[in-house]
Amino acid sequence: MSDDPHSRGGPPTYVHEGARTPSPAERARTLVAGQVDGTLSTLAIDPAGYPFGSIVTFALDDRGAPLVLMSTMAEHTRNLDQDDRASLLVTEGGDGAGRLAAARATLVGRVTRVAEADQDAAMEAYLVVHPGAFWARFPDFAVHRLDVEAIRYVRGFGEMSWVDPAGYASAEADPVDAAAQERIVTHCNEDHADALATIVAAFLPVEGEVTGVTMTTCDRYGFEVRIDLAPSEPGGASGLAFGRLGFDGVLDEPGQARGAMVRLVQAAEAAQA
Amino acid sequence: MSDDPHSRGGPPTYVHEGARTPSPAERARTLVAGQVDGTLSTLAIDPAGYPFGSIVTFALDDRGAPLVLMSTMAEHTRNLDQDDRASLLVTEGGDGAGRLAAARATLVGRVTRVAEADQDAAMEAYLVVHPGAFWARFPDFAVHRLDVEAIRYVRGFGEMSWVDPAGYASAEADPVDAAAQERIVTHCNEDHADALATIVAAFLPVEGEVTGVTMTTCDRYGFEVRIDLAPSEPGGASGLAFGRLGFDGVLDEPGQARGAMVRLVQAAEAAQA
Repeated sequence: MSDDPHSRGGPPTYVHEGARTPSPAERARTLVAGQVDGTLSTLAIDPAGYPFGSIVTFALDDRGAPLVLMSTMAEHTRNLDQDDRASLLVTEGGDGAGRLAAARATLVGRVTRVAEADQDAAMEAYLVVHPGAFWARFPDFAVHRLDVEAIRYVRGFGEMSWVDPAGYASAEADPVDAAAQERIVTHCNEDHADALATIVAAFLPVEGEVTGVTMTTCDRYGFEVRIDLAPSEPGGASGLAFGRLGFDGVLDEPGQARGAMVRLVQAAEAAQA
Repeated sequence: MSDDPHSRGGPPTYVHEGARTPSPAERARTLVAGQVDGTLSTLAIDPAGYPFGSIVTFALDDRGAPLVLMSTMAEHTRNLDQDDRASLLVTEGGDGAGRLAAARATLVGRVTRVAEADQDAAMEAYLVVHPGAFWARFPDFAVHRLDVEAIRYVRGFGEMSWVDPAGYASAEADPVDAAAQERIVTHCNEDHADALATIVAAFLPVEGEVTGVTMTTCDRYGFEVRIDLAPSEPGGASGLAFGRLGFDGVLDEPGQARGAMVRLVQAAEAAQA
């Protein structure tokens, strides 16, 4: 049972022995790789020195540095001409109150215009992600790069850390992207609730009577569950716990999740037999 | 026909004589009033002086100043303790490429903790908008206010302006909010395409043969349309124009749109008769 700072003294979290967990650097890289826009913060010319937020669209280079398409006429570009310090906030999505529960990363660094010799290659990389951006070829537009010096990653309420920029630069985005994760989680919860219960019973030392198991996330290393518990005394409130389960290998692509789940159920049944 | 900077030499925009248009201050106030979260930019302690973006949730006071709930443990709060300059970027929504077409406002100013004597009232105002924020009563949380000194409003591609903060503070949010606008626009396009065509034919001096009229926005003063045009020569490309129509009065609530539309159709029919 971990002392997850998420919980502020809340429900326990159980971890399957040997289960690998994505590092904050991997989580941050995966999050940023899955998005195409964010909020750029720059230092305003007027009112001078105030931090100024604006919307930008981006692609990533091979070290995860954002390639941002900007017009010389835009407020943020003029700000950056004067002071190149900036940050890019990228969020997983979610609206309203959901925004605080959703993961986000702030990449802090300096933004400079990509050198003329590299401008075509950078533009090509940008247009792969934004094929409809016909304005990219207007003469006032150019690709700029945010060279990342510091990264703040917030997974949700109270779970946050600074991420090593070198670790972020070398991390690979998880092949189980948001869309794949959504499909896997929905399918397992709708059609395989019994398998999830079997896995939890075999591998997590849950205290109390489990009344339900719901998959909440899935990644290349495994998945996380919410565990509903019967009241510990008659008439008491029902309980709650969280858990993390590990696959027997690392998924190279989301289609491998099915086989990994099947093997995990088989191992659970063997352990229980 | 206006010279809307939106278009960069693109399609013409026609305006109904006497039609009133929301001011940028009104548009900004309406936009911000319709949202509950945004990106706060602060000046980082570390790396020192870099602008730092993070997600916050807010409510508005009666002058449109954001009331932001913040924990003393949060990065942005520690940044603000050292330098209270900040901005809050609020966006209308939209994902991916849609983000650049969607309206957004950046409110620039100083963020300070609401005085103890006013903390309860500010918290109450915050909780009206965020009734589920049980953590608001944790001892490390308090309401802070952004006193707005400058406002940048971007309506979409290339249509942007600085907004007078006093005008923003005194502006009333449009009673035709995003949800009401969605209902009105959908209903008019699905069930009253003929009425829209009649109104455009009567009140906009469109050059060319109109083949379709689609309502795109609606506000308390009127609405905007996209106008499809037949090719100007056989085998040529079909054309496009935009238009703004005005109601005969200002709507106090969205339910009055129906009557205003009926009167506009009647006036159009009378003008054409």
